Amino acid sequence: MTDTTIASHLVRRFRELGIDCGFGIVGDFALKMFSALDAEGFPILVTTDEQGAGFAADACARLKGFGVVAVTYGAGGLKVANAAANAWAEQVPMLILSGGPGVVERKGDPNLHHKVKDFGTQLRVFEELTCAQAVLTSGHTAADEIDRVLREIVSQQRPGYIEVPRDLIGIAIDPPDFGIEPDLPIVDEAALHAALAEVLIAMRESTRVAIHAGAMVNRRGVADALFSLATSAGIPVATSSLARGVFPERHELGIGMYLGALTPAPVRERVEGADLVLSLGVLQTDLTLGGFTADIDRRKAIWCSDTDVTVGYHTYKNVPLWAFLPALANAVFSESVALRPDPLPGHVDFTATNAELTVERTVDAVNGHVDERHGLILDPGEALFSSVDMRVPTWALGSAYYATMGYAVPAALGAGKADPERRPFVIVGDGAFVMTALEAASCAFHGVPAIILVLDNSGYGTQRPIVDGPFNDIAQMAPEKLVEVFGMGRGWKATTEVELDSALTEAIASNELCIIRAVLPKYGRSAALSRLGEALSAKA
Amino acid sequence: MTDTTIASHLVRRFRELGIDCGFGIVGDFALKMFSALDAEGFPILVTTDEQGAGFAADACARLKGFGVVAVTYGAGGLKVANAAANAWAEQVPMLILSGGPGVVERKGDPNLHHKVKDFGTQLRVFEELTCAQAVLTSGHTAADEIDRVLREIVSQQRPGYIEVPRDLIGIAIDPPDFGIEPDLPIVDEAALHAALAEVLIAMRESTRVAIHAGAMVNRRGVADALFSLATSAGIPVATSSLARGVFPERHELGIGMYLGALTPAPVRERVEGADLVLSLGVLQTDLTLGGFTADIDRRKAIWCSDTDVTVGYHTYKNVPLWAFLPALANAVFSESVALRPDPLPGHVDFTATNAELTVERTVDAVNGHVDERHGLILDPGEALFSSVDMRVPTWALGSAYYATMGYAVPAALGAGKADPERRPFVIVGDGAFVMTALEAASCAFHGVPAIILVLDNSGYGTQRPIVDGPFNDIAQMAPEKLVEVFGMGRGWKATTEVELDSALTEAIASNELCIIRAVLPKYGRSAALSRLGEALSAKA
Repeated sequence: MTDTTIASHLVRRFRELGIDCGFGIVGDFALKMFSALDAEGFPILVTTDEQGAGFAADACARLKGFGVVAVTYGAGGLKVANAAANAWAEQVPMLILSGGPGVVERKGDPNLHHKVKDFGTQLRVFEELTCAQAVLTSGHTAADEIDRVLREIVSQQRPGYIEVPRDLIGIAIDPPDFGIEPDLPIVDEAALHAALAEVLIAMRESTRVAIHAGAMVNRRGVADALFSLATSAGIPVATSSLARGVFPERHELGIGMYLGALTPAPVRERVEGADLVLSLGVLQTDLTLGGFTADIDRRKAIWCSDTDVTVGYHTYKNVPLWAFLPALANAVFSESVALRPDPLPGHVDFTATNAELTVERTVDAVNGHVDERHGLILDPGEALFSSVDMRVPTWALGSAYYATMGYAVPAALGAGKADPERRPFVIVGDGAFVMTALEAASCAFHGVPAIILVLDNSGYGTQRPIVDGPFNDIAQMAPEKLVEVFGMGRGWKATTEVELDSALTEAIASNELCIIRAVLPKYGRSAALSRLGEALSAKA
Repeated sequence: MTDTTIASHLVRRFRELGIDCGFGIVGDFALKMFSALDAEGFPILVTTDEQGAGFAADACARLKGFGVVAVTYGAGGLKVANAAANAWAEQVPMLILSGGPGVVERKGDPNLHHKVKDFGTQLRVFEELTCAQAVLTSGHTAADEIDRVLREIVSQQRPGYIEVPRDLIGIAIDPPDFGIEPDLPIVDEAALHAALAEVLIAMRESTRVAIHAGAMVNRRGVADALFSLATSAGIPVATSSLARGVFPERHELGIGMYLGALTPAPVRERVEGADLVLSLGVLQTDLTLGGFTADIDRRKAIWCSDTDVTVGYHTYKNVPLWAFLPALANAVFSESVALRPDPLPGHVDFTATNAELTVERTVDAVNGHVDERHGLILDPGEALFSSVDMRVPTWALGSAYYATMGYAVPAALGAGKADPERRPFVIVGDGAFVMTALEAASCAFHGVPAIILVLDNSGYGTQRPIVDGPFNDIAQMAPEKLVEVFGMGRGWKATTEVELDSALTEAIASNELCIIRAVLPKYGRSAALSRLGEALSAKA
């Protein structure tokens, strides 16, 4: 026998995967697990609701390559079904770690609280939402089962699920048979060389090349190769909404986010007007392509996915991004190609007037105030769309494809813990804010002095132009007064540019939780959404 | 062709089922559906988060026999997975009505936002959590599919799921082939008569009979028969934690809630010390039986379930509660049995002292203040357990078996709409409160002036005696200050009995949303939990 336990094995693996805390809410079926993880030096940081813990773990995983949300069974686990779905859709390597009734307790199928149809219900739900699952049943198989799920999470870059019956916590378990080295997408070396040769020729023949860089560059850990490729060849890089920060947007070659018709004209022209577009690890979805308005000519495009490289109309199978991008960067570096276009303006100073706020000017103000000390977190809707007019100084996270509202505030907790060098700066609409607003207190409670900017346009403003009705009106609140409820932090309400400018200045100078409400016109919209509207009208 | 649409058919059925509004949050895949339902005079009342809408619909269903939560696809639907699970476990007839991508949009499996693995993921998740499901696909089958799900919801008294692709809203649909009359559990008439005869003999031979009445009495609409049975025979009635209000607890025969070892001694003695216990429609679960501490001698018990009657050790199959209880009430009425014991004290006046608050005295205070104008909603944990020392004046709702924390505040919205004659009075722990606290604003926004009493014991107090650790400590807040964030309502912080008494007096006199924080000892516990602790120690 060994002195390895489920908790000690889990924590060993979590450390190997680079994290030192999880997020979650305890419950009686999970108490021993939380206590044992804590005793192993791996605390689970409490949030106000499980949903928030799920999003915090997701944000941690986006920045660190792995995250853990720990919950109790049923009433805990099923509250993170949506967070798991978000992680699946956006390829986030997150573990859902659930407590559960003991192996012995389950015998005879008694009606224990938190049970649904039977003790397998929760497992079957997560089979639909994760890439690998395990319900631990014995000390002999526990380590191998845990490792199988962790390996799949990292290999597939998707969420996974482990359920630990409470009577197994504390037992000695057999050591694992293998490590958790990921099975990366396989490489056809000959196809890789052929693809590389064709791509290099295409690049040499082009005078205007652009890169569209996506989330899989981050997920597969090849952002350095992207930087090397772009800088040695002087290629401008636009980022996908799921990958902001994969290339520094305030670098002279960083041109910001490309989001189809929502993109500002100069950036759009750099991408769509290029002779050759290298699309690197971009998840091809409606929202990340600006509602499928992205207009990149296939004949001039090279699509590198997690598994294949497609040049024009033909595909090199088993030429995965993780192998191809470093190979391409090396080849280009040795050739010293130098396209280097005129840089687009990056950071823009914001000069406040006494005018009432608009979304556009609010975004400009944030753009002018944030710097390398900040990481951005953008909630779906206007907060995310309008940020296409920003050059983010470091990274920016968001549920940019699955689009789950209420993501941003709790994600600030996970991001703040994952990257303590950056202070989370959240931009969130008022409708999304109230979904998870109290997680602002979780941020402060755990020492993350987030800045939260609430775009208050009196309801679900993004939807009003589609179909309006009473269902778009929500209970009005004064988010800036929440700091009084928390007994922590500072709050501001800004209706003019000057007020916002001043609030941003004070918030950035402060070390506390800061909540700023920007009061916006009910029927206003960002420059980005206006551009989208124009593009769709032109099509119709 | 007809002029029936999906929305008009749904609303026709919803009206037949007795409800005139639903609860939910819109999203682009659900906009047309929400708008069409609204146009048919069936508004969907917005909450701050989908979870809250799920619990509001659940509370509505408990009081009205049906409830609807309406959501958008994915990021909406999966947020109510836990609410659906709660409804399944506690047999609540609630419909999850989800918008979805159009039938045409789904072709070719494009990566549309809110999609998970494929367009069937959400359906498959709800197959695990509901009793019937339909994804509408055509106008020819829509009405019959809707009716099939609604019929199963009412027949089985479980949640169901309907998904409406957005391009079907507005099309003319074929009329339904049948109505939605429920298929009640079948009756073996001969067995029913035999069971009735044996039960009547057992009752005649007993001098001390007691009734334990459960949720299925409500669900099957036979509370009148229960009242007739109890009053004509003079039998004291204890209620299950899932069925409070099924018999009036302040009636001279109402003895309050029976919850195994948590029950106050006089009530427990009346139940466990009886010669004969009629257990009527009680869901037999760990929590509703006081952590399986209920000590009812099977030889002296008659168990009436939704399908069978069990006398001692033998079972009459297909003698369902809905048929048996009225038959028994009629038979007893014609015999005029009159056991009628001395009544137990019901309502107790509360006399406040200057002492600091305890859970026990807080419960006494509420017991002394509430009356027939109030309906109670009790969150799992201390709020629910400690209420075993109350006689609730009307009904009391709670997630008493599945035990999903954060249920009570949003449930107040649903309850307030379902029973406008009663003002919802919520009792909730501080840990559960922060999960859904902002739904207090949803209550006020929709004209439900709930009174919310937060039992603030600085974290997850119910768990501290089991295993304590930092995971039981939460971010402290001042719930009473939320009314300033909402710009609506009144708040109080009470640390002494006098302060609580005064706050309760003012809250009950007020017509606004009221939030009262009762500051309690961190390690205190209710009389009920102390009794449970003693019982478990005595066993060990």
